[in-house]
Amino acid sequence: MESMLKILISNDDGIHANGIQALASRLAQEHDVYVVAPDRERSAMGHALTLHRPIRLEEADLSFPVKKAYAISGTPSDCIKLALNTLLDVEIDVLVSGINHGPNLGSDVIYSGTVSAALEGAIHGVPSIAVSLVNGAEKHADFSHSAEFIAGFLPVAMQVGIPAKSILNINIPAISRHHFAGIKIAALGTRLYSNTYERRVDPRGGVYYWLAGEVIENHDDIDDSDVQAIRNNMVAISPVHYNLTNYNALTLLQEKLQITHVLPTE
Amino acid sequence: MESMLKILISNDDGIHANGIQALASRLAQEHDVYVVAPDRERSAMGHALTLHRPIRLEEADLSFPVKKAYAISGTPSDCIKLALNTLLDVEIDVLVSGINHGPNLGSDVIYSGTVSAALEGAIHGVPSIAVSLVNGAEKHADFSHSAEFIAGFLPVAMQVGIPAKSILNINIPAISRHHFAGIKIAALGTRLYSNTYERRVDPRGGVYYWLAGEVIENHDDIDDSDVQAIRNNMVAISPVHYNLTNYNALTLLQEKLQITHVLPTE
Repeated sequence: MESMLKILISNDDGIHANGIQALASRLAQEHDVYVVAPDRERSAMGHALTLHRPIRLEEADLSFPVKKAYAISGTPSDCIKLALNTLLDVEIDVLVSGINHGPNLGSDVIYSGTVSAALEGAIHGVPSIAVSLVNGAEKHADFSHSAEFIAGFLPVAMQVGIPAKSILNINIPAISRHHFAGIKIAALGTRLYSNTYERRVDPRGGVYYWLAGEVIENHDDIDDSDVQAIRNNMVAISPVHYNLTNYNALTLLQEKLQITHVLPTE
Repeated sequence: MESMLKILISNDDGIHANGIQALASRLAQEHDVYVVAPDRERSAMGHALTLHRPIRLEEADLSFPVKKAYAISGTPSDCIKLALNTLLDVEIDVLVSGINHGPNLGSDVIYSGTVSAALEGAIHGVPSIAVSLVNGAEKHADFSHSAEFIAGFLPVAMQVGIPAKSILNINIPAISRHHFAGIKIAALGTRLYSNTYERRVDPRGGVYYWLAGEVIENHDDIDDSDVQAIRNNMVAISPVHYNLTNYNALTLLQEKLQITHVLPTE
Protein backbone atom coordinates (compact mmCIF):
# COMPACT_ATOMS: atom_id res chain seq x y z
CA MET A 1 0.00 0.00 0.00
CA GLU A 2 1.13 3.54 -0.79
CA SER A 3 2.10 5.65 2.20
CA MET A 4 -0.39 8.17 3.46
CA LEU A 5 0.12 11.78 2.37
CA LYS A 6 -0.87 15.05 4.03
CA ILE A 7 -2.69 16.80 1.20
CA LEU A 8 -3.87 20.41 1.04
CA ILE A 9 -6.76 20.87 -1.39
CA SER A 10 -8.04 24.15 -2.80
CA ASN A 11 -9.71 25.46 -5.94
CA ASP A 12 -11.24 28.56 -7.52
CA ASP A 13 -14.79 27.30 -8.09
CA GLY A 14 -15.49 27.53 -4.34
CA ILE A 15 -15.54 24.93 -1.56
CA HIS A 16 -19.01 23.67 -2.46
CA ALA A 17 -18.23 22.98 -6.14
CA ASN A 18 -18.59 19.39 -7.34
CA GLY A 19 -15.00 19.23 -8.60
CA ILE A 20 -13.31 19.84 -5.24
CA GLN A 21 -15.79 17.58 -3.46
CA ALA A 22 -15.08 14.70 -5.86
CA LEU A 23 -11.32 15.22 -5.49
CA ALA A 24 -11.27 15.63 -1.70
CA SER A 25 -13.63 12.74 -0.97
CA ARG A 26 -11.63 10.39 -3.22
CA LEU A 27 -8.24 11.37 -1.79
CA ALA A 28 -9.60 11.25 1.80
CA GLN A 29 -10.10 7.49 1.33
CA GLU A 30 -6.32 7.00 1.53
CA HIS A 31 -4.78 10.23 2.79
CA ASP A 32 -5.02 13.01 5.38
CA VAL A 33 -6.91 15.77 3.58
CA TYR A 34 -7.02 19.47 4.52
CA VAL A 35 -9.39 21.66 2.49
CA VAL A 36 -8.90 25.44 2.42
CA ALA A 37 -10.90 26.97 -0.42
CA PRO A 38 -12.83 30.12 -1.35
CA ASP A 39 -16.35 30.37 0.07
CA ARG A 40 -17.70 31.08 -3.44
CA GLU A 41 -16.66 31.07 -7.08
CA ARG A 42 -13.43 32.97 -7.67
CA SER A 43 -12.56 31.98 -11.21
CA ALA A 44 -10.49 34.18 -13.58
CA MET A 45 -8.93 35.74 -10.47
CA GLY A 46 -5.36 35.25 -11.74
CA HIS A 47 -2.89 35.57 -8.89
CA ALA A 48 -4.87 38.19 -6.99
CA LEU A 49 -4.35 38.79 -3.28
CA THR A 50 -6.71 40.45 -0.83
CA LEU A 51 -4.87 43.38 0.77
CA HIS A 52 -7.51 45.99 1.51
CA ARG A 53 -10.23 43.94 3.12
CA PRO A 54 -10.04 41.56 6.06
CA ILE A 55 -10.21 37.88 5.24
CA ARG A 56 -12.87 35.87 7.03
CA LEU A 57 -12.96 32.13 7.41
CA GLU A 58 -15.29 29.55 8.79
CA GLU A 59 -14.96 25.84 9.34
CA ALA A 60 -16.85 24.00 6.64
CA ASP A 61 -18.94 20.92 7.20
CA LEU A 62 -18.22 18.43 4.43
CA SER A 63 -20.09 15.18 3.87
CA PHE A 64 -16.93 13.06 4.12
CA PRO A 65 -14.15 12.85 6.72
CA VAL A 66 -11.30 15.33 6.35
CA LYS A 67 -8.74 16.58 8.89
CA LYS A 68 -9.79 20.22 8.52
CA ALA A 69 -11.96 22.21 6.11
CA TYR A 70 -12.16 26.00 5.92
CA ALA A 71 -14.15 28.30 3.65
CA ILE A 72 -12.30 31.60 3.07
CA SER A 73 -13.68 34.98 1.96
CA GLY A 74 -10.70 35.50 -0.35
CA THR A 75 -8.99 34.44 -3.55
CA PRO A 76 -7.32 31.07 -4.24
CA SER A 77 -3.90 32.65 -3.52
CA ASP A 78 -5.22 34.00 -0.19
CA CYS A 79 -6.37 30.48 0.72
CA ILE A 80 -2.95 28.93 0.18
CA LYS A 81 -1.01 31.75 1.86
CA LEU A 82 -3.31 31.68 4.88
CA ALA A 83 -3.34 27.86 5.07
CA LEU A 84 0.43 27.46 4.89
CA ASN A 85 1.36 30.47 7.02
CA THR A 86 -1.26 30.39 9.72
CA LEU A 87 -4.09 27.86 9.64
CA LEU A 88 -2.37 24.47 9.39
CA ASP A 89 0.14 23.25 11.94
CA VAL A 90 1.20 20.20 9.92
CA GLU A 91 3.81 19.80 7.19
CA ILE A 92 1.88 19.45 3.93
CA ASP A 93 3.32 16.83 1.51
CA VAL A 94 1.48 17.97 -1.60
CA LEU A 95 -1.08 20.56 -2.67
CA VAL A 96 -3.77 19.75 -5.24
CA SER A 97 -5.86 22.57 -6.71
CA GLY A 98 -9.07 21.59 -8.46
CA ILE A 99 -10.74 19.81 -9.99
CA ASN A 100 -11.62 22.86 -12.06
CA HIS A 101 -14.83 22.78 -14.08
CA GLY A 102 -13.41 23.59 -17.54
CA PRO A 103 -9.97 23.68 -19.13
CA ASN A 104 -6.91 25.60 -17.97
CA LEU A 105 -4.83 25.20 -21.09
CA GLY A 106 -2.08 27.10 -22.85
CA SER A 107 -1.90 30.85 -22.53
CA ASP A 108 -5.12 30.82 -20.45
CA VAL A 109 -3.29 29.61 -17.34
CA ILE A 110 -2.25 33.21 -16.65
CA TYR A 111 -5.91 34.02 -15.80
CA SER A 112 -6.49 30.83 -13.83
CA GLY A 113 -7.25 30.86 -10.12
CA THR A 114 -6.84 27.07 -10.06
CA VAL A 115 -3.29 27.35 -11.41
CA SER A 116 -2.42 30.34 -9.21
CA ALA A 117 -3.38 28.41 -6.04
CA ALA A 118 -0.91 25.71 -7.09
CA LEU A 119 1.77 28.30 -7.97
CA GLU A 120 1.32 29.87 -4.53
CA GLY A 121 2.05 26.42 -3.08
CA ALA A 122 5.22 26.19 -5.17
CA ILE A 123 6.27 29.68 -4.01
CA HIS A 124 6.01 28.30 -0.45
CA GLY A 125 8.11 25.26 -1.42
CA VAL A 126 5.23 22.76 -1.36
CA PRO A 127 4.98 20.26 -4.28
CA SER A 128 1.84 21.39 -6.09
CA ILE A 129 -0.52 20.23 -8.81
CA ALA A 130 -3.40 21.95 -10.62
CA VAL A 131 -6.14 19.77 -12.11
CA SER A 132 -8.84 20.71 -14.59
CA LEU A 133 -11.56 18.74 -16.34
CA VAL A 134 -11.87 19.77 -19.98
CA ASN A 135 -15.59 19.76 -20.45
CA GLY A 136 -17.69 22.22 -22.31
CA ALA A 137 -20.26 24.67 -21.08
CA GLU A 138 -22.65 21.98 -19.76
CA LYS A 139 -23.62 22.59 -16.12
CA HIS A 140 -23.23 19.00 -14.99
CA ALA A 141 -19.85 17.33 -15.15
CA ASP A 142 -18.69 13.91 -13.99
CA PHE A 143 -15.49 14.38 -11.99
CA SER A 144 -15.16 10.75 -10.88
CA HIS A 145 -12.73 9.66 -13.62
CA SER A 146 -10.52 12.68 -13.01
CA ALA A 147 -10.49 12.14 -9.23
CA GLU A 148 -9.60 8.48 -9.77
CA PHE A 149 -6.80 9.42 -12.17
CA ILE A 150 -5.32 11.88 -9.66
CA ALA A 151 -5.54 9.32 -6.83
CA GLY A 152 -3.44 6.99 -8.96
CA PHE A 153 -1.08 9.61 -10.35
CA LEU A 154 -0.27 11.33 -7.04
CA PRO A 155 2.08 8.62 -5.66
CA VAL A 156 3.86 8.50 -9.05
CA ALA A 157 4.31 12.29 -9.04
CA MET A 158 5.68 12.17 -5.49
CA GLN A 159 8.11 9.40 -6.44
CA VAL A 160 9.30 11.12 -9.64
CA GLY A 161 9.38 14.52 -7.94
CA ILE A 162 7.70 17.72 -9.05
CA PRO A 163 10.33 20.08 -10.54
CA ALA A 164 11.55 22.78 -8.14
CA LYS A 165 9.77 26.16 -8.25
CA SER A 166 7.23 24.59 -10.62
CA ILE A 167 3.85 22.92 -10.57
CA LEU A 168 2.28 20.24 -12.72
CA ASN A 169 -0.71 21.62 -14.60
CA ILE A 170 -2.95 18.68 -15.48
CA ASN A 171 -5.86 18.81 -17.89
CA ILE A 172 -8.04 15.73 -18.17
CA PRO A 173 -10.39 15.06 -21.11
CA ALA A 174 -14.04 14.63 -20.15
CA ILE A 175 -14.26 11.02 -21.31
CA SER A 176 -14.30 7.77 -19.35
CA ARG A 177 -10.91 6.50 -18.22
CA HIS A 178 -10.61 3.57 -20.61
CA HIS A 179 -11.00 6.04 -23.48
CA PHE A 180 -7.94 8.06 -22.36
CA ALA A 181 -5.46 7.82 -25.26
CA GLY A 182 -2.52 8.19 -22.84
CA ILE A 183 -0.59 10.85 -20.99
CA LYS A 184 1.30 13.65 -22.71
CA ILE A 185 3.99 15.80 -21.05
CA ALA A 186 3.29 18.96 -23.00
CA ALA A 187 4.30 22.60 -23.33
CA LEU A 188 1.58 25.20 -22.90
CA GLY A 189 0.02 25.99 -26.26
CA THR A 190 -1.87 29.09 -27.28
CA ARG A 191 -5.56 29.75 -26.94
CA LEU A 192 -7.00 32.56 -28.99
CA TYR A 193 -10.35 34.13 -28.30
CA SER A 194 -12.72 36.05 -30.49
CA ASN A 195 -12.95 38.61 -27.70
CA THR A 196 -15.90 40.87 -27.86
CA TYR A 197 -17.62 43.07 -25.34
CA GLU A 198 -21.36 43.37 -25.46
CA ARG A 199 -22.43 46.96 -24.93
CA ARG A 200 -25.71 47.46 -23.09
CA VAL A 201 -27.65 50.36 -21.64
CA ASP A 202 -29.33 50.12 -18.22
CA PRO A 203 -32.86 51.48 -17.50
CA ARG A 204 -31.32 54.80 -16.35
CA GLY A 205 -29.29 55.27 -19.51
CA GLY A 206 -25.95 54.12 -18.07
CA VAL A 207 -23.66 52.15 -20.39
CA TYR A 208 -22.11 48.86 -19.31
CA TYR A 209 -20.21 46.03 -20.97
CA TRP A 210 -20.10 42.25 -20.63
CA LEU A 211 -17.03 40.29 -21.64
CA ALA A 212 -18.17 37.79 -24.27
CA GLY A 213 -16.20 35.97 -26.92
CA GLU A 214 -15.38 32.34 -27.60
CA VAL A 215 -12.23 30.30 -27.95
CA ILE A 216 -11.06 29.92 -31.55
CA GLU A 217 -10.65 26.16 -31.91
CA ASN A 218 -7.97 24.62 -34.10
CA HIS A 219 -5.60 27.48 -33.57
CA ASP A 220 -2.32 26.52 -31.95
CA ASP A 221 1.14 27.55 -33.04
CA ILE A 222 3.12 25.30 -30.68
CA ASP A 223 3.90 21.67 -31.50
CA ASP A 224 3.14 18.96 -28.95
CA SER A 225 1.17 21.39 -26.81
CA ASP A 226 -1.35 20.67 -24.07
CA VAL A 227 -4.06 22.05 -26.37
CA GLN A 228 -3.23 19.43 -28.99
CA ALA A 229 -2.93 16.61 -26.43
CA ILE A 230 -6.45 17.26 -25.18
CA ARG A 231 -7.72 17.36 -28.75
CA ASN A 232 -6.27 13.82 -29.07
CA ASN A 233 -8.06 12.58 -25.92
CA MET A 234 -4.84 12.52 -23.89
CA VAL A 235 -4.27 13.70 -20.33
CA ALA A 236 -1.99 16.76 -20.69
CA ILE A 237 0.61 17.40 -17.98
CA SER A 238 2.62 20.63 -18.22
CA PRO A 239 5.41 21.78 -15.90
CA VAL A 240 4.58 25.43 -15.19
CA HIS A 241 6.76 27.85 -13.24
CA TYR A 242 6.37 31.34 -11.82
CA ASN A 243 9.61 32.79 -13.18
CA LEU A 244 8.38 35.02 -16.00
CA THR A 245 11.83 36.10 -17.24
CA ASN A 246 12.20 35.64 -21.00
CA TYR A 247 15.83 34.46 -20.89
CA ASN A 248 16.16 34.26 -24.69
CA ALA A 249 15.28 37.93 -24.96
CA LEU A 250 17.66 38.90 -22.16
CA THR A 251 20.92 38.53 -24.11
CA LEU A 252 19.41 39.83 -27.34
CA LEU A 253 18.18 42.96 -25.60
CA GLN A 254 21.56 43.59 -23.99
CA GLU A 255 23.29 43.44 -27.38
CA LYS A 256 20.75 45.68 -29.11
CA LEU A 257 20.81 48.31 -26.37
CA GLN A 258 24.61 48.38 -26.52
CA ILE A 259 24.42 49.09 -30.25
CA THR A 260 22.12 52.05 -29.56
CA HIS A 261 24.61 53.23 -26.87
CA VAL A 262 22.00 53.07 -24.11
CA LEU A 263 24.08 50.40 -22.38
CA PRO A 264 27.88 50.70 -22.18
CA THR A 265 29.77 47.93 -24.01
CA GLU A 266 31.78 45.81 -21.62
CA MET B 1 12.37 65.17 -33.78
CA GLU B 2 11.09 61.70 -32.87
CA SER B 3 7.92 60.65 -34.61
CA MET B 4 4.71 60.85 -32.70
CA LEU B 5 3.40 57.63 -31.18
CA LYS B 6 -0.13 56.49 -30.35
CA ILE B 7 0.26 55.43 -26.72
CA LEU B 8 -2.25 53.55 -24.55
CA ILE B 9 -1.67 54.20 -20.84
CA SER B 10 -3.08 52.20 -17.93
CA ASN B 11 -2.14 51.24 -14.38
CA ASP B 12 -3.41 49.46 -11.28
CA ASP B 13 -3.32 52.35 -8.82
CA GLY B 14 -6.37 53.92 -10.49
CA ILE B 15 -6.79 56.73 -13.02
CA HIS B 16 -6.42 59.46 -10.41
CA ALA B 17 -3.10 58.22 -8.99
CA ASN B 18 -0.14 60.55 -9.24
CA GLY B 19 1.99 58.01 -11.10
CA ILE B 20 -0.29 57.68 -14.15
CA GLN B 21 -0.94 61.43 -14.20
CA ALA B 22 2.80 62.19 -14.25
CA LEU B 23 3.37 59.62 -17.01
CA ALA B 24 0.41 60.59 -19.18
CA SER B 25 0.95 64.34 -18.92
CA ARG B 26 4.65 63.99 -19.80
CA LEU B 27 4.05 61.68 -22.77
CA ALA B 28 1.14 63.83 -24.00
CA GLN B 29 3.62 66.64 -24.65
CA GLU B 30 4.97 64.71 -27.66
CA HIS B 31 2.54 61.90 -28.43
CA ASP B 32 -1.12 60.96 -28.86
CA VAL B 33 -2.12 59.59 -25.48
CA TYR B 34 -5.13 57.36 -24.71
CA VAL B 35 -5.76 56.60 -21.02
CA VAL B 36 -7.91 53.60 -20.04
CA ALA B 37 -7.44 52.80 -16.36
CA PRO B 38 -9.32 51.46 -13.32
CA ASP B 39 -11.59 53.95 -11.55
CA ARG B 40 -9.90 53.10 -8.22
CA GLU B 41 -6.96 51.20 -6.78
CA ARG B 42 -6.71 47.66 -8.10
CA SER B 43 -3.27 46.60 -6.93
CA ALA B 44 -2.29 42.96 -6.24
CA MET B 45 -5.02 41.96 -8.71
CA GLY B 46 -2.71 39.67 -10.68
CA HIS B 47 -4.18 38.86 -14.07
CA ALA B 48 -7.78 38.90 -12.90
CA LEU B 49 -10.67 39.42 -15.32
CA THR B 50 -14.21 40.54 -14.53
CA LEU B 51 -16.59 37.88 -15.83
CA HIS B 52 -19.57 37.92 -13.47
CA ARG B 53 -20.28 41.61 -13.18
CA PRO B 54 -20.89 44.16 -15.91
CA ILE B 55 -18.06 46.60 -16.55
CA ARG B 56 -18.93 50.28 -16.39
CA LEU B 57 -16.93 53.08 -17.83
CA GLU B 58 -17.04 56.83 -17.87
CA GLU B 59 -15.03 59.44 -19.70
CA ALA B 60 -12.51 60.98 -17.34
CA ASP B 61 -11.65 64.65 -17.23
CA LEU B 62 -7.89 65.01 -16.93
CA SER B 63 -6.07 68.27 -16.36
CA PHE B 64 -3.95 67.89 -19.52
CA PRO B 65 -4.83 67.19 -23.16
CA VAL B 66 -5.21 63.54 -24.16
CA LYS B 67 -7.03 61.96 -27.10
CA LYS B 68 -9.34 59.89 -24.86
CA ALA B 69 -9.50 59.02 -21.16
CA TYR B 70 -11.79 56.41 -19.61
CA ALA B 71 -12.20 55.24 -16.00
CA ILE B 72 -13.26 51.58 -15.86
CA SER B 73 -14.98 49.65 -13.05
CA GLY B 74 -12.71 46.68 -13.62
CA THR B 75 -9.22 45.26 -13.30
CA PRO B 76 -6.11 46.37 -15.22
CA SER B 77 -6.55 43.38 -17.58
CA ASP B 78 -10.19 44.37 -18.17
CA CYS B 79 -9.04 47.89 -19.10
CA ILE B 80 -6.63 46.67 -21.77
CA LYS B 81 -8.97 44.05 -23.22
CA LEU B 82 -11.82 46.56 -23.41
CA ALA B 83 -9.60 49.33 -24.81
CA LEU B 84 -8.04 47.22 -27.55
CA ASN B 85 -11.16 45.25 -28.49
CA THR B 86 -13.87 47.86 -28.24
CA LEU B 87 -13.12 51.38 -27.03
CA LEU B 88 -10.31 52.60 -29.26
CA ASP B 89 -10.61 52.79 -33.02
CA VAL B 90 -6.93 53.59 -33.62
CA GLU B 91 -3.90 51.34 -34.01
CA ILE B 92 -1.94 51.65 -30.75
CA ASP B 93 1.88 51.77 -31.23
CA VAL B 94 2.84 51.07 -27.64
CA LEU B 95 1.20 50.47 -24.27
CA VAL B 96 2.73 51.83 -21.06
CA SER B 97 1.38 50.64 -17.70
CA GLY B 98 2.25 52.72 -14.67
CA ILE B 99 3.94 54.50 -13.14
CA ASN B 100 3.30 52.17 -10.22
CA HIS B 101 3.80 53.53 -6.72
CA GLY B 102 6.22 50.92 -5.38
CA PRO B 103 8.38 48.16 -6.85
CA ASN B 104 7.29 45.29 -9.11
CA LEU B 105 10.44 43.22 -8.86
CA GLY B 106 11.38 39.57 -9.09
CA SER B 107 8.87 36.93 -8.16
CA ASP B 108 6.38 39.65 -7.11
CA VAL B 109 5.47 40.43 -10.71
CA ILE B 110 3.06 37.48 -10.65
CA TYR B 111 0.82 39.48 -8.25
CA SER B 112 1.18 42.77 -10.11
CA GLY B 113 -1.72 44.47 -11.79
CA THR B 114 0.71 46.92 -13.42
CA VAL B 115 2.60 44.07 -15.07
CA SER B 116 -0.57 42.17 -15.99
CA ALA B 117 -1.94 45.19 -17.87
CA ALA B 118 1.25 45.21 -19.96
CA LEU B 119 1.12 41.41 -20.47
CA GLU B 120 -2.49 41.76 -21.68
CA GLY B 121 -1.16 44.24 -24.25
CA ALA B 122 1.48 41.71 -25.36
CA ILE B 123 -1.20 39.00 -25.64
CA HIS B 124 -2.99 41.36 -28.06
CA GLY B 125 0.24 41.87 -30.02
CA VAL B 126 0.85 45.45 -28.85
CA PRO B 127 4.43 46.37 -27.76
CA SER B 128 4.07 46.89 -24.03
CA ILE B 129 6.01 48.26 -21.08
CA ALA B 130 5.36 48.21 -17.32
CA VAL B 131 6.93 50.95 -15.19
CA SER B 132 7.31 51.11 -11.42
CA LEU B 133 8.94 53.59 -9.07
CA VAL B 134 10.83 51.81 -6.32
CA ASN B 135 10.04 53.97 -3.33
CA GLY B 136 9.17 52.88 0.14
CA ALA B 137 5.96 53.18 2.08
CA GLU B 138 5.94 56.99 2.04
CA LYS B 139 2.66 58.44 0.78
CA HIS B 140 4.18 61.11 -1.40
CA ALA B 141 6.38 60.15 -4.31
CA ASP B 142 8.03 62.23 -7.01
CA PHE B 143 7.29 60.59 -10.36
CA SER B 144 8.86 63.33 -12.52
CA HIS B 145 12.26 61.64 -12.98
CA SER B 146 10.61 58.35 -13.91
CA ALA B 147 8.25 60.01 -16.38
CA GLU B 148 11.18 61.85 -17.96
CA PHE B 149 13.19 58.63 -18.21
CA ILE B 150 10.31 56.83 -19.96
CA ALA B 151 9.79 59.74 -22.37
CA GLY B 152 13.44 59.37 -23.40
CA PHE B 153 13.55 55.57 -23.38
CA LEU B 154 10.34 54.97 -25.35
CA PRO B 155 11.75 55.92 -28.81
CA VAL B 156 14.82 53.73 -28.09
CA ALA B 157 12.61 50.78 -27.12
CA MET B 158 10.54 51.23 -30.29
CA GLN B 159 13.71 51.34 -32.42
CA VAL B 160 15.31 48.30 -30.76
CA GLY B 161 12.01 46.44 -30.68
CA ILE B 162 10.29 44.83 -27.70
CA PRO B 163 10.73 41.03 -27.89
CA ALA B 164 7.70 39.17 -29.31
CA LYS B 165 5.14 37.86 -26.81
CA SER B 166 7.01 39.74 -24.07
CA ILE B 167 6.97 43.04 -22.25
CA LEU B 168 9.68 45.17 -20.73
CA ASN B 169 9.25 45.41 -16.97
CA ILE B 170 11.02 48.57 -15.82
CA ASN B 171 11.77 49.47 -12.21
CA ILE B 172 13.21 52.91 -11.54
CA PRO B 173 15.02 53.83 -8.31
CA ALA B 174 13.47 56.74 -6.40
CA ILE B 175 16.47 59.03 -6.79
CA SER B 176 17.05 61.99 -9.05
CA ARG B 177 18.09 61.19 -12.62
CA HIS B 178 21.74 62.24 -12.40
CA HIS B 179 22.14 59.76 -9.54
CA PHE B 180 21.02 56.83 -11.74
CA ALA B 181 24.02 54.46 -11.83
CA GLY B 182 22.99 53.19 -15.26
CA ILE B 183 20.58 50.75 -16.88
CA LYS B 184 20.69 47.02 -16.25
CA ILE B 185 18.98 44.39 -18.44
CA ALA B 186 18.20 41.95 -15.67
CA ALA B 187 16.51 38.63 -14.96
CA LEU B 188 13.73 38.63 -12.37
CA GLY B 189 15.18 37.90 -8.94
CA THR B 190 13.41 36.51 -5.92
CA ARG B 191 11.62 38.46 -3.22
CA LEU B 192 10.89 36.65 0.00
CA TYR B 193 8.39 37.87 2.55
CA SER B 194 8.03 37.23 6.22
CA ASN B 195 4.35 36.53 5.58
CA THR B 196 2.15 36.70 8.56
CA TYR B 197 -1.55 37.10 9.03
CA GLU B 198 -2.83 39.18 11.91
CA ARG B 199 -5.76 37.46 13.57
CA ARG B 200 -8.41 39.78 15.01
CA VAL B 201 -11.84 39.41 16.52
CA ASP B 202 -14.67 41.78 15.58
CA PRO B 203 -17.14 43.28 18.13
CA ARG B 204 -19.54 40.39 17.47
CA GLY B 205 -16.92 37.69 18.10
CA GLY B 206 -16.22 36.92 14.42
CA VAL B 207 -12.62 36.11 13.50
CA TYR B 208 -10.86 37.82 10.62
CA TYR B 209 -7.34 38.10 9.27
CA TRP B 210 -5.21 40.82 7.71
CA LEU B 211 -2.32 39.97 5.42
CA ALA B 212 0.78 41.52 6.99
CA GLY B 213 4.44 40.69 6.53
CA GLU B 214 7.42 42.50 5.14
CA VAL B 215 9.92 41.86 2.37
CA ILE B 216 13.11 40.18 3.58
CA GLU B 217 15.85 42.46 2.23
CA ASN B 218 19.20 41.14 1.07
CA HIS B 219 17.78 37.83 0.03
CA ASP B 220 18.24 37.02 -3.64
CA ASP B 221 19.44 33.77 -5.12
CA ILE B 222 19.75 34.94 -8.74
CA ASP B 223 22.83 36.75 -10.05
CA ASP B 224 22.43 39.99 -11.98
CA SER B 225 18.79 40.24 -11.01
CA ASP B 226 16.48 43.25 -11.09
CA VAL B 227 16.44 43.19 -7.29
CA GLN B 228 20.22 43.62 -7.20
CA ALA B 229 20.21 46.27 -9.93
CA ILE B 230 17.80 48.45 -7.93
CA ARG B 231 19.93 47.96 -4.83
CA ASN B 232 22.80 49.42 -6.90
CA ASN B 233 20.74 52.49 -7.93
CA MET B 234 20.32 51.23 -11.49
CA VAL B 235 17.20 51.26 -13.65
CA ALA B 236 16.27 47.57 -14.02
CA ILE B 237 14.73 46.42 -17.32
CA SER B 238 13.52 42.81 -17.52
CA PRO B 239 12.01 41.05 -20.54
CA VAL B 240 8.97 39.24 -19.12
CA HIS B 241 6.75 36.83 -21.03
CA TYR B 242 3.44 35.09 -20.42
CA ASN B 243 4.52 31.60 -21.42
CA LEU B 244 4.78 29.84 -18.08
CA THR B 245 6.07 26.51 -19.46
CA ASN B 246 9.17 25.32 -17.59
CA TYR B 247 10.95 23.94 -20.68
CA ASN B 248 13.92 22.58 -18.69
CA ALA B 249 11.55 20.44 -16.64
CA LEU B 250 9.67 19.24 -19.72
CA THR B 251 12.31 16.81 -21.02
CA LEU B 252 13.36 15.71 -17.54
CA LEU B 253 9.79 14.86 -16.64
CA GLN B 254 9.29 12.88 -19.84
CA GLU B 255 12.35 10.76 -19.08
CA LYS B 256 11.44 10.16 -15.45
CA LEU B 257 7.85 9.20 -16.24
CA GLN B 258 9.07 6.76 -18.88
CA ILE B 259 11.26 5.05 -16.24
CA THR B 260 8.22 4.64 -14.00
CA HIS B 261 6.31 3.21 -17.02
CA VAL B 262 3.62 5.88 -16.85
CA LEU B 263 4.67 7.06 -20.31
CA PRO B 264 5.52 4.57 -23.07
CA THR B 265 9.13 4.71 -24.28
CA GLU B 266 9.32 5.79 -27.89
